[in-house]
Amino acid sequence: MLLLIPGPVTTRPEVRAALAHDFAPWDNDFRPLLAGVRARLLRIAGGTPDRHTVLPLQGCGHFITEAAVRSFILPGGKLLIPDTGPYSDRMVRLAREAGRVPVTLPISQTMPTPPDAVAAALEGEPDISHVGVVYSETGSGVVHDPAMIGAVVRAAGRRLIVDAVSAFGALPLDVAAQPEIDAVVFTPNKCLESVPGMAFAVARIDRLEACAGHAGSWSFDLASVHAHSLRAGPGSSRFTPAPQAINALKVALDFFDAEGGQPARLARYTENMRVLYDGVLSIGLEPCLAPEHQGPIIVNVHAPDDPAWDLQRFVDALKRRGVLISNFYNTPTPSFRVGCIGAIMPDDMSRAVGAMAEALNELGINRRRAA
Amino acid sequence: MLLLIPGPVTTRPEVRAALAHDFAPWDNDFRPLLAGVRARLLRIAGGTPDRHTVLPLQGCGHFITEAAVRSFILPGGKLLIPDTGPYSDRMVRLAREAGRVPVTLPISQTMPTPPDAVAAALEGEPDISHVGVVYSETGSGVVHDPAMIGAVVRAAGRRLIVDAVSAFGALPLDVAAQPEIDAVVFTPNKCLESVPGMAFAVARIDRLEACAGHAGSWSFDLASVHAHSLRAGPGSSRFTPAPQAINALKVALDFFDAEGGQPARLARYTENMRVLYDGVLSIGLEPCLAPEHQGPIIVNVHAPDDPAWDLQRFVDALKRRGVLISNFYNTPTPSFRVGCIGAIMPDDMSRAVGAMAEALNELGINRRRAA
Repeated sequence: MLLLIPGPVTTRPEVRAALAHDFAPWDNDFRPLLAGVRARLLRIAGGTPDRHTVLPLQGCGHFITEAAVRSFILPGGKLLIPDTGPYSDRMVRLAREAGRVPVTLPISQTMPTPPDAVAAALEGEPDISHVGVVYSETGSGVVHDPAMIGAVVRAAGRRLIVDAVSAFGALPLDVAAQPEIDAVVFTPNKCLESVPGMAFAVARIDRLEACAGHAGSWSFDLASVHAHSLRAGPGSSRFTPAPQAINALKVALDFFDAEGGQPARLARYTENMRVLYDGVLSIGLEPCLAPEHQGPIIVNVHAPDDPAWDLQRFVDALKRRGVLISNFYNTPTPSFRVGCIGAIMPDDMSRAVGAMAEALNELGINRRRAA
Repeated sequence: MLLLIPGPVTTRPEVRAALAHDFAPWDNDFRPLLAGVRARLLRIAGGTPDRHTVLPLQGCGHFITEAAVRSFILPGGKLLIPDTGPYSDRMVRLAREAGRVPVTLPISQTMPTPPDAVAAALEGEPDISHVGVVYSETGSGVVHDPAMIGAVVRAAGRRLIVDAVSAFGALPLDVAAQPEIDAVVFTPNKCLESVPGMAFAVARIDRLEACAGHAGSWSFDLASVHAHSLRAGPGSSRFTPAPQAINALKVALDFFDAEGGQPARLARYTENMRVLYDGVLSIGLEPCLAPEHQGPIIVNVHAPDDPAWDLQRFVDALKRRGVLISNFYNTPTPSFRVGCIGAIMPDDMSRAVGAMAEALNELGINRRRAA
């Protein structure tokens, strides 16, 4: 079965095999594994050990996003969030319920966030301390450039938190070149092609130390995670981690390196996306985004304007052909969504397009333009 | 390698094999798996679907403990916590940093919490809304009876939160008989003999609904987890779960049932503990607890009074013999700790005692009584 969902993604058999072991997370034989993974993630983010650290946190992307918001933004502090779609909505809710004050910046959800709009919003509200941006918005498939947004954040003397959950490993990052970044958060079950269980933040050490004590949650206090690491060593876990997931990530990073790192991964995903994008056009469907705004991570396709269209039936017909896509959408109008990430190749995308053509025929869907 | 740590425990090969698959957590084929696991956990807790629900949460035991504290205790609310040891200390810190007011009840850490002491403390402070108790204190190895403590909590008109992280599956629970319980929290990587990645709470439905909205954290709001389940179905996850860990838990529950459920598991662990306890005595060492207060989950053994004693060297010598114990202790005086839980049998404990005798000889430790 080919998982074409925006994560958890299709993994390599070797990655999955790395799960099938027992580990004692505080044992001296396990510690180098976690320490090594952290060091490798730091290099992928463009960080250096003197300025940045990679902090592991149990759980999912929402958890590490909430942890970053709590750890770097004061209670009651204001956070500007460009309204990129469902994942910026989630950051808004995480921030609000954590007692921070999200300020939403309305933007078009079908193109990248205009840095000028961020600059104007920051100029208008001097008490906004942070900007929170979703790098790759899973809802729309649009990539929002943290470097361009970061430049205006830096110019305005504010700080940046980057939700790179659907981006890390495929889209470029250089935290050393962006001193305005407090944290980049991500999970390994997307573009790093590993499994869920752990999340990570790349964070500035000086900011972690300056911000200690105001997270309002021991579990989600990244300054506490950092302090534990300093005290007990880089391979030590504050609370019980998911050691199988860490071992799988180690193997996934071996494949990441062997492939040629982030540029190679981006090239493969971009080709996956292009084959899919052109392919759905060739069978009469319409992608939701213009080609120049289509990111390489996820493609949303308009639901066909045919009374026979039924998303779950389409998903089931694809599944019978070995292709699994999401059975829900989160675009404003009906669509289906297909992930371009994971241990999949352009040939897999061709096969998926073939399966889509067959599934549409099986369902008797002839009117395929957008509803 | 035999893991004799208090979790993550030694698992069966079939449980580990269940990890080595890709899963799409929102797919209709995955949902019955999560829903089925939740229903089975509810039965183990003695709950019924009309009154109680089992809520999954990504992450570790600390996370689900914080989630229960946030979800059921009002901000600023008071929580009485018997000072059972390091794990009650952790509940104290989780509660304090979440803006609740922990009130510590000093007790002896070498015997079960006296219910009378809880009753007296509650009588003295009428504004304490909750009691939080650690069922099996990993620090000491003492079991604290939530039924006896619950009776005085109920009589005082207060509510109970049970940290059953090191207990669930082995020690008895009957939430239906204890209406004062708001939540029992646990992870599957202890007495259920599965792997880390997900945590769970058994909670009262009416209380979840009454307490909605004051967690102060979307991630840790159990009322939100419950509301999502009602809206999207019992197999749906609010955020990305660790699906491999859920599949492993399903297999672990099959073995749990085949063994005879909680009574059989308790009997096996009790026998493991007895073989270990008598075994360490037979080689001249001294367990930290009197036999009548020694729980079946973990045995702490006093560090020998010999200048050659070195915990890490002892751990390494045992590891060379295929037995892995913790390389730290959290008793007030030096000790080593050995877990009696996991997919291990009394014969394994005999083998471990033999390895300990060899390791002590290798290290030249002759004075074996407590330091």
